[in-house]
Amino acid sequence: MAYIPSRDLVAGVLRSEQRAVARMLSRAEAGSDEARQALDDMFQHAGRAHIVGITGVPGSGKSTLVAKLAAGIRRTGRRVGIVAVDPSSPFSGGSILGDRIRMADLGADPGVYVRSMATRGALGGLANGTLESVDVLDAAGYDIVMIETVGVGQDEVEVARAAHTTVVVSAPGLGDDIQAIKAGILEIADVHVVSKCDRPDANRTIADIKAMLTLGLSLKPQGERGRWSAPVIATTSVRDEGVTELLAAIDSHYAHLVASGEIEQRRSAINERRMLRAAEEILRSSFARHRESHVARLMAGLSARTLSPHAAASRLLADLRMGEKA
Amino acid sequence: MAYIPSRDLVAGVLRSEQRAVARMLSRAEAGSDEARQALDDMFQHAGRAHIVGITGVPGSGKSTLVAKLAAGIRRTGRRVGIVAVDPSSPFSGGSILGDRIRMADLGADPGVYVRSMATRGALGGLANGTLESVDVLDAAGYDIVMIETVGVGQDEVEVARAAHTTVVVSAPGLGDDIQAIKAGILEIADVHVVSKCDRPDANRTIADIKAMLTLGLSLKPQGERGRWSAPVIATTSVRDEGVTELLAAIDSHYAHLVASGEIEQRRSAINERRMLRAAEEILRSSFARHRESHVARLMAGLSARTLSPHAAASRLLADLRMGEKA
Repeated sequence: MAYIPSRDLVAGVLRSEQRAVARMLSRAEAGSDEARQALDDMFQHAGRAHIVGITGVPGSGKSTLVAKLAAGIRRTGRRVGIVAVDPSSPFSGGSILGDRIRMADLGADPGVYVRSMATRGALGGLANGTLESVDVLDAAGYDIVMIETVGVGQDEVEVARAAHTTVVVSAPGLGDDIQAIKAGILEIADVHVVSKCDRPDANRTIADIKAMLTLGLSLKPQGERGRWSAPVIATTSVRDEGVTELLAAIDSHYAHLVASGEIEQRRSAINERRMLRAAEEILRSSFARHRESHVARLMAGLSARTLSPHAAASRLLADLRMGEKA
Repeated sequence: MAYIPSRDLVAGVLRSEQRAVARMLSRAEAGSDEARQALDDMFQHAGRAHIVGITGVPGSGKSTLVAKLAAGIRRTGRRVGIVAVDPSSPFSGGSILGDRIRMADLGADPGVYVRSMATRGALGGLANGTLESVDVLDAAGYDIVMIETVGVGQDEVEVARAAHTTVVVSAPGLGDDIQAIKAGILEIADVHVVSKCDRPDANRTIADIKAMLTLGLSLKPQGERGRWSAPVIATTSVRDEGVTELLAAIDSHYAHLVASGEIEQRRSAINERRMLRAAEEILRSSFARHRESHVARLMAGLSARTLSPHAAASRLLADLRMGEKA
């Protein structure tokens, strides 16, 4: 199979041809220099999709919920893209979860596109190519693009910053420690889900989240997020319960963003964040290219402890012609 | 209480005066410009401590184990510093876990210093000040400095990169999903711990980890980590079982690093990583200072989608005089 230059894939992506989309996604994930201009084109053609982040602790049933939600979106006639960020071994780069299998029943529908990505230890938890993959699906005309993350901590924050609407999934009975950590990410939710509500302790979890929300809201600066009040949706994926309500809440949040004008603030915050991340990426690659010369000299100073990491970094930035890779 | 300039604290830290250490740690965490030179001094006086990272999923009983381990280290006559990185709300900056309370019984011993830090959404999970805090405790003469992280994913990788010896704590019965994710971080362990071994399903967890290690080792490039074979230590903190064995394994790993010469490779890798992180931090602060001028113009291009994040980042780096803050 001949290699197709990335620029020749752009038109195919814009026509939503599955093979062009698949290839462009691979190049977004690989982050190859050859694809740079094409990925910039993707960004320029994107901007219409509703980006939804779905996050929560391991074991909260996110993947099942995402699959059910995708089916629900399809029933409204809209097309949906899914970028699933898997935890992966930082050293092998291998993906370890088999969750994607649950998506299998959606595979035959051309209105659904599912892409699983490894995180590969990118700073901030989301792989560098994740947001460019979202651009690809957005440019290909998917109406809703969901980013699903597995894990707790940084990933959630990154998702909150990259999505228009952030859904945080909690589940009953995951233990106190986990729920405590979840409390740290409750604030980033535009919509809360308590999954597995067939379990007897689900009402307790719902009540806990509502109690934390009441407490949290009173501490928040007024008007920071408009007047949106994050709903708590109870779902039972195995019985398809609550999925319609969840989709309604997601749609309703988007309508609120548009009506209030807040969508522009969110888009702007996402763009700023992405620019900063791209600058860091350029910095890293510049660092890698100069490893033998500048960097080796600075490393010798660090090793002898005559130079601190901060002082070495300042010299590195002053020495390197940072813009050269533009 | 009068403010003491950071430079005047350096001598006190080197004499291991608790109040000087406490103040310097606060400044490391705050990352103030005023403390820059003093923190660089800390780095230059550091380098003798054995840095031990302790990590694992929420609920694995890390904090209790760290407290027991600290008591064990004290019984050998050595002094121990602990930097505990708490998960925190990225928006409020508040710390949410009460784990530190379990450390309370160590508080009266001047040979133990415990510092709890918030993560505050720093890229990579570990707060920027974490490694400079380790420098402070190292410069103050603590023989072993432990970094304890809570969470899964990026934090573990950062710890592995910042520590000479990485201990990964697993616990029985935390659920399949969590154990699967744990599998992703098994590779970074120099020493494995299975905690809570009074539970009936502990043997299963031990067997699982050993099975994964057997599988993993055969896939690893030969000699990448010398000939060290990560042991699996069973502990029951409530009965103080296994703690002596764990300390012996940690000491044994350090002896291996020194004997094999691998310690220098690890130190070098840590320094390189720290330099890169410091460069990113300078970049961020430069970005923040130019928000009104350069950045605003680039943001307009992003908003109109005439400029991609990558193209905007290249211009940003070319425009800014990166070295100015050196």
